[in-house]
Amino acid sequence: MKNFLKITREDLEELDNQDPLKQFGSEFNMPEGILYFDGNSLGAMPHATLDRVNKVVLEEWGSKLITSWNSSGWHSLSETIGNKIAKLVGAGDGEVVCVDGTGLNIHKVHAVALKMRADRKVIVMEGSNFPTDAYITQGLIDQLEQNHKIRFVEKDQILDAITEDVALVSLTQVHYKMGHLLDMKSITQKVHDTGALVVWDLSHSAGVLPIALNQCNVDFAVGCTYKYLNGGPGSPGYLFVAKRHQGKETQPLTGWWSHEKPFAFEQEYRPKNDIGQFLSGTQPIVALAAVEVGIDMLLRADMDCIRTKSLALGDIFIRLIKKHLSDYGLTLATPITGAHRGSQISLRSKNGFAIMQALKEVGVIGDFRAPDNMRFGFAPLYTRYTDLWDAVIKLRAIMENDTWKAGRFSRVPDVT
Amino acid sequence: MKNFLKITREDLEELDNQDPLKQFGSEFNMPEGILYFDGNSLGAMPHATLDRVNKVVLEEWGSKLITSWNSSGWHSLSETIGNKIAKLVGAGDGEVVCVDGTGLNIHKVHAVALKMRADRKVIVMEGSNFPTDAYITQGLIDQLEQNHKIRFVEKDQILDAITEDVALVSLTQVHYKMGHLLDMKSITQKVHDTGALVVWDLSHSAGVLPIALNQCNVDFAVGCTYKYLNGGPGSPGYLFVAKRHQGKETQPLTGWWSHEKPFAFEQEYRPKNDIGQFLSGTQPIVALAAVEVGIDMLLRADMDCIRTKSLALGDIFIRLIKKHLSDYGLTLATPITGAHRGSQISLRSKNGFAIMQALKEVGVIGDFRAPDNMRFGFAPLYTRYTDLWDAVIKLRAIMENDTWKAGRFSRVPDVT
Repeated sequence: MKNFLKITREDLEELDNQDPLKQFGSEFNMPEGILYFDGNSLGAMPHATLDRVNKVVLEEWGSKLITSWNSSGWHSLSETIGNKIAKLVGAGDGEVVCVDGTGLNIHKVHAVALKMRADRKVIVMEGSNFPTDAYITQGLIDQLEQNHKIRFVEKDQILDAITEDVALVSLTQVHYKMGHLLDMKSITQKVHDTGALVVWDLSHSAGVLPIALNQCNVDFAVGCTYKYLNGGPGSPGYLFVAKRHQGKETQPLTGWWSHEKPFAFEQEYRPKNDIGQFLSGTQPIVALAAVEVGIDMLLRADMDCIRTKSLALGDIFIRLIKKHLSDYGLTLATPITGAHRGSQISLRSKNGFAIMQALKEVGVIGDFRAPDNMRFGFAPLYTRYTDLWDAVIKLRAIMENDTWKAGRFSRVPDVT
Repeated sequence: MKNFLKITREDLEELDNQDPLKQFGSEFNMPEGILYFDGNSLGAMPHATLDRVNKVVLEEWGSKLITSWNSSGWHSLSETIGNKIAKLVGAGDGEVVCVDGTGLNIHKVHAVALKMRADRKVIVMEGSNFPTDAYITQGLIDQLEQNHKIRFVEKDQILDAITEDVALVSLTQVHYKMGHLLDMKSITQKVHDTGALVVWDLSHSAGVLPIALNQCNVDFAVGCTYKYLNGGPGSPGYLFVAKRHQGKETQPLTGWWSHEKPFAFEQEYRPKNDIGQFLSGTQPIVALAAVEVGIDMLLRADMDCIRTKSLALGDIFIRLIKKHLSDYGLTLATPITGAHRGSQISLRSKNGFAIMQALKEVGVIGDFRAPDNMRFGFAPLYTRYTDLWDAVIKLRAIMENDTWKAGRFSRVPDVT
């Protein structure tokens, strides 16, 4: 490749043409004229999802009705999809279920981890990270009334914060706002060296980089399917529990699906002794089935290839910004070194909100996170190299012409 | 109407013709040749749901992508649908949200109720009722470690069991297996007379009989949308919190959607002070949107009319069984008096499992609940009077010919 500082749109067209993932682009629905950089918030719609959802609604529900619990595999769908997600994140069969939302799954695994380390009361989290992980943890702590405390630190302080009083270290692998990537292997090692347990939230990393939960000896993980896994708005989350931790402590949301024999309708609760204990109630099957389509697509792609393209997209975006927008006070919030970031680039500007709104007006969809963060997410299955060029040129026009100052942009946020 | 014991199929055809709800039947998908009596487990599919789901997937997600959180009303969908459910159950605006599963919602309202009555440790529940309510409660109790106890009683002992040590009475209005209807008004009155709080699970009553939560001064309620509300397999549940109890104690599943300002991304959790505090995380929008279709249909119907037809269906079914099947040892588990039952009739037989399997083989879909209970649910929007006749005739043939003894029926259960 040529020197990036001299890169042209033709160079990027050439990269698109050579892209080994290019076949996947046509498998997604993308409206004409839209440059979409928000797959880290809501992934794009695979065409096949529409067929799958129609099949579930009309054939499985509409025509086969209640019998579909058996004949259409609804009973085991959380496990079926979980086992597929396992392949994406370096876990084994029977270690992942696709169920509930990410926050609820955090509640479950945190509750179990705190029981397993009952003599310790500190939970280490990254203070600036997506707040729901901390909110859920605060709710759990309040409920337990055992004087647990969250020790909030920032990324460079994490290793030092893992001391002998720590029960649990709960971290998101890629930061939702800044986009930096934490080192799962070394942090997990330190956690175990001090006798604590670790929970990794993979919401912003699964589907865009290789993850090796079992190689890293991870205890628990959770994640979201509506970002890079393209499961659809609010689609069910997932959780991972290492085999060695299953069948011991019971997670507290003890609905009937987590019972050893749900259809015996016994009065007493008896937990399943495998990953099924982390289920709770009946899942929204239409939404759950849709998740499988996005996962199946990712399983056809090569994850190293996805990571390579993801980093190249980020590198080129940074360089295009540097070349075309150096005069406008935008600063890079994401590490410039590829090995230290996920699949998004965040730019800071005190006018970030208005600039992002102006971008949306011209069809460039990223998002804004208060106070000053513009996020641009790259989904290697459908983001094209030329999209970067076209977006940067539009952003330059907005900055040159002060379009963002128009001030007519309402401040209503989108969901992360 | 003629004497039921002499009823003919022509009489039932006449009832179908005169049925003020008959227009609704054609709005549901029902496979040819199927007599469906399992709407108390999984409601039938409204044709309009397919259009709605396609619109959400292709237009709202596929084309409008992340912007749909605002432009398609996704942000407020739990509240929008909740307010519609409120009209079905005698609640007010801002008292109901459609969110998560029934079990998780029980966890939330039980946790709040137990905090509100912290000096009392007894929870009264109906021992034979659907176990997930008890399982979830056991999980909560174990987590709280405050020596709460569940006092399991059967229906005739409920009033006597509500003593001064009771914090919470948590009951399902219509029994999932036996089909009996509890008296919400008198029980709630007794609960309040003793200073306790009440939670009503409406899973088997909402949509088939008039419910007056606020007239009965109910504190909390939960329910399921995939039965008589026809929301689709595993569709999200709902919960009701009386206005007077909102903004006080915090439910413990404190995801970001329950935060006063979710998009401020603050580190500290600050609860919403309204029904929104009972949300937790992002909802599965495709499944959630589907729920609205079934609710909208019920809101077009008259609930008294639904109840009248529901009871007539039950009366006629009982009489047909008595006339045509008196020789086969089937006993009635559901009260014969309409005022004491919901919208299902349960028949007991030690051969119930095999008989129900034989019925399914000839297109009559009810379900079996161990040890001996065959359930037949009636959904007045689509169950026809003639369906009863046709089902009973088929059941008689099975019994006369001993078809059920063939013994080739596998024992794999369907979900309630």
